[in-house]
Amino acid sequence: MPKALAIDIGGTKIYNSIVNEKGEIISEIEKHHTPKTFEEIKEIFKEIITAHENEADVIAISTCGAVNNSNTGILGSTGNIAKEYPTMDFMSLSKKKVFVENDANAAAWAEHIIGSSKGLPTSIMITLGTGVGGGLILNNRIFKGKNGAAGEMHFKMRTDKHRKCTCGSWDCFEAYASGSGLKKTAEEISKNPNITTYDVIGGWQKNDNLMTEIYKKWENDILEGLIGLANIFDPDVIVLSGSLAEFTNPEYLTETVNKEIVTTPTKIVKGSAGNYSGMIGAALLALGVGLGGDK
Amino acid sequence: MPKALAIDIGGTKIYNSIVNEKGEIISEIEKHHTPKTFEEIKEIFKEIITAHENEADVIAISTCGAVNNSNTGILGSTGNIAKEYPTMDFMSLSKKKVFVENDANAAAWAEHIIGSSKGLPTSIMITLGTGVGGGLILNNRIFKGKNGAAGEMHFKMRTDKHRKCTCGSWDCFEAYASGSGLKKTAEEISKNPNITTYDVIGGWQKNDNLMTEIYKKWENDILEGLIGLANIFDPDVIVLSGSLAEFTNPEYLTETVNKEIVTTPTKIVKGSAGNYSGMIGAALLALGVGLGGDK
Repeated sequence: MPKALAIDIGGTKIYNSIVNEKGEIISEIEKHHTPKTFEEIKEIFKEIITAHENEADVIAISTCGAVNNSNTGILGSTGNIAKEYPTMDFMSLSKKKVFVENDANAAAWAEHIIGSSKGLPTSIMITLGTGVGGGLILNNRIFKGKNGAAGEMHFKMRTDKHRKCTCGSWDCFEAYASGSGLKKTAEEISKNPNITTYDVIGGWQKNDNLMTEIYKKWENDILEGLIGLANIFDPDVIVLSGSLAEFTNPEYLTETVNKEIVTTPTKIVKGSAGNYSGMIGAALLALGVGLGGDK
Repeated sequence: MPKALAIDIGGTKIYNSIVNEKGEIISEIEKHHTPKTFEEIKEIFKEIITAHENEADVIAISTCGAVNNSNTGILGSTGNIAKEYPTMDFMSLSKKKVFVENDANAAAWAEHIIGSSKGLPTSIMITLGTGVGGGLILNNRIFKGKNGAAGEMHFKMRTDKHRKCTCGSWDCFEAYASGSGLKKTAEEISKNPNITTYDVIGGWQKNDNLMTEIYKKWENDILEGLIGLANIFDPDVIVLSGSLAEFTNPEYLTETVNKEIVTTPTKIVKGSAGNYSGMIGAALLALGVGLGGDK
C-alpha cells in the first residue's frame, strides 16, 4: 500500500510519521520543538527525510503559512516562525515527490476523506486553537483562491476598531473565536488581566456565573461567524477542530445557525480525524487519495 | 449564431429580449411590471414565451430567489414577489430547453464572460441596490453550494443586535451596504427619519459635511465586508454592480483592502456588463458559453 512520510510543521512543534493511503499512522510519531533559526529548521527537515524517506513513496508536508497553488512552496510571510522560513526550498529536500499544503487545508482534507465531513462535497473547517485556521472544501476540492491563500478566517465581527487582530487589522473572527480571543473577552468582562482560558472553561464547566457569561459571549461570537459562513457557502457541514472545539456544543450551534440563515439547513460538527489531521491530510493529498472524483 | 430568449424577473420588473452567444442583446427589450399574483406572473411568462420562443434556441431565465443545482426551479421562499412563485414549474413553459439561474449568479457570469472579471478564474460579484446580491465565480464556475443557495451576503457587521436585516437575522452586510442600509445609517447619523439615499449621495457630491460623514460610514461598511471576502476567497477581483456601485470609489477601496488583508493583493472594480447583466448572463449560461474550460 502506498505510504507517505508526513511532516507537520508549526510555530511550536514539528511532527513526523509514516501515513498510509487509508490515512492510518503506521509508525511512531516523532516530535521536535520548532527551532528559532531557519538553518536549524532546514537541518531538522534533512534529518527527518534522510532517516525515513526510504520507508515512503512520497514526502507530504503540512505547514503553517499559505502554500502556493502548485503545492511547492510558501507564499509571503508567516507568523511565529523564523522569518526566512517562507523561502524554504521544499522541492530540493528529496529525490522523491515532495508535496506541500497549508496545515488547515490539509486537516480539512483529512476530515473530508476519513473524518466528520467524509463523503460531503462542500465543507468548511475551522480550527479553534491559539489562533483560528480555516480550510474550504468546495465541490470535493480544496479551494485555494487566486494564489493559494484562501480560507483565512479574517472577516470582521465589528467595525469600530475595538480589538486589534494578530493579522494587523481589527476585529477579525480570529480575534474573538480563538483561544487568544477568548482570553481577551475574559479580560474585558472580568476586568482581570491574569485570567486564562482554563479559568473560563473550568469555571463554565462548574456553572460559575461570571465564567459562564464569558463562555456564552465567546460561543456567540463563534455562532455569528458560522451564520455568515453558512450564508456565503451553503455548505453540507461546518467542521470545528482544534483544541477548543471540544468545548463547543455542535447541537446548539447547528440549531441556532439554522434559525438565522437564508440558505438551506447545514450541520455544525466536531472534527474526528484527530490531533494529527494535518499530517494525515497532507499524506492523503500527496498520495492522491480522493482526487479522482468530480471537481 | 445560437440565441436565447432571456427573461429577467425581479420583485418589481420583468424584462425580456433575445441575446446571442456573444452576450449581445439583439432585439428590443420588453418590460413589464411584476404582477402581484402568481397566476398573473405565469400568464406573463406564457405570453413572452409564446411570442418569442421561435426566435431563439433556448429559454434563459434570470430570477430573484435561490435556484437549485439542476437549474430547473427555485429553492425555498423569496421576498418581494407572490408567495407561490417558488413553486413555478419553469420546465413546462416551453418544449425548448429552459434554463434557470439566480439573478446575481447570472449577472456574475455576464461579468465573467464579457465584463469586468473576464478571463479571471475567481471573482466575487456584489450588487449594491435596494438590497445586496452576491455571486461567486470560483475556478471559472458559479459556486452554488450544497443546494444552490450560496453567495448570500448575509455575514455579520456587528454582534450586538443593532439593526434588523430583511433576512430576519441581525446586522448583516446587506443591512449596512445596501441602499436600504445607507438610508438607515443616514437616519441614525442625521436623526432625520425622512432622509433619502438621494440626499446623501447628492450632498456628498456637493461636499456637504454631514452627508459626507454618512457616505463615509457607508463606504467603510462596504470596505469592512470586502476585507472579509478577500481574506476568505483570495479572489482575482471583487466586482461591484447595481445602482449604487457608480457612487463607490474602486481605487480607494482596492488600496485600502490590500492594506488590511492577509491574502494576496486583489482588485475592486465596477461591473461593466451593464443594467441587463442578469439577462445576458442567463443567456450565456443557457447557451453553454464559458462552460467548456477547466473547473
